[in-house]
Amino acid sequence: MNKKVLFDLNYGLYIVTSKEGDTFSGCVVNTVTQITAEEKPKLIVAINKENYTAEIAKKSKKMNLAVLSQEADMLLIGKFGFRSGRDINKLEGTEYKMGNNGIPIITEKVVSYIECNILQVIDCGTHDLFLLEMQEGEKIEEKEPMTYHYYHTVIKGKTPPKASSYNED
Amino acid sequence: MNKKVLFDLNYGLYIVTSKEGDTFSGCVVNTVTQITAEEKPKLIVAINKENYTAEIAKKSKKMNLAVLSQEADMLLIGKFGFRSGRDINKLEGTEYKMGNNGIPIITEKVVSYIECNILQVIDCGTHDLFLLEMQEGEKIEEKEPMTYHYYHTVIKGKTPPKASSYNED
Repeated sequence: MNKKVLFDLNYGLYIVTSKEGDTFSGCVVNTVTQITAEEKPKLIVAINKENYTAEIAKKSKKMNLAVLSQEADMLLIGKFGFRSGRDINKLEGTEYKMGNNGIPIITEKVVSYIECNILQVIDCGTHDLFLLEMQEGEKIEEKEPMTYHYYHTVIKGKTPPKASSYNED
Repeated sequence: MNKKVLFDLNYGLYIVTSKEGDTFSGCVVNTVTQITAEEKPKLIVAINKENYTAEIAKKSKKMNLAVLSQEADMLLIGKFGFRSGRDINKLEGTEYKMGNNGIPIITEKVVSYIECNILQVIDCGTHDLFLLEMQEGEKIEEKEPMTYHYYHTVIKGKTPPKASSYNED
């Protein structure tokens, strides 16, 4: 089996955030996918179980998604993608606004955002699959969304070992 | 809530196929997402419950994914994306090969394919969410994979009402 074919799948790049009480975290994912087009559309996102964001989201039952723009740099992606919210306050020095659901939304180098309730968490081994219901969504800036392909080929970004799409080969 | 922000999410474009006994069908989706990077990676795909492919896949517990190349045309996408396997034999006049799991794999205008077992089916309202485990995967041709963005902006393709990402606005 040639696992390199998994690199042929296409994605965007997102910062997902959650907050429970005073405890906040957020992380970078490529796994945001719209599943239904109902009045309140359903989406999924997969997050590594070891990520602080997954732990907090399971308690708060709420999660916000920010769609990164092509202008997102390694300073922002490094902070949210390669460091843990257990060690640093990721909101410090980051542009954000408070969502209607009380969860901060990253607005720095972001084209739009979606506020969600968590309907279900499906155990997928190393990762949790969150089934989400869209509650709000607004445009932030008219820019090109970042694709995972652009991140790899133009920004020359790497994939951390805990990512859904990590391949050590 | 501005549902148009859902257009900022990025995807690829795929033909998923399944077969139970002599009954085959396949359809076009944009919802293929790698969820885990385990020895046998897990993926998900969402398919409208009314699609013949969803019905057959739930019986056969197997599904194959073909990654469309940028060269895929509306003849191929129209056959698999806008017509039902209940009405026509979608394999007729289409290039394909048989997978190791006995499920045909579309190879026409395809860069690579993945053979999967279905681990779980999660009811998401209008759509079924299939949790898949990769069994095989091979490259077909070194071409650029089709993105959903390219399909909309360059090929000027439309989204059928049963799609996960349909938006009538």
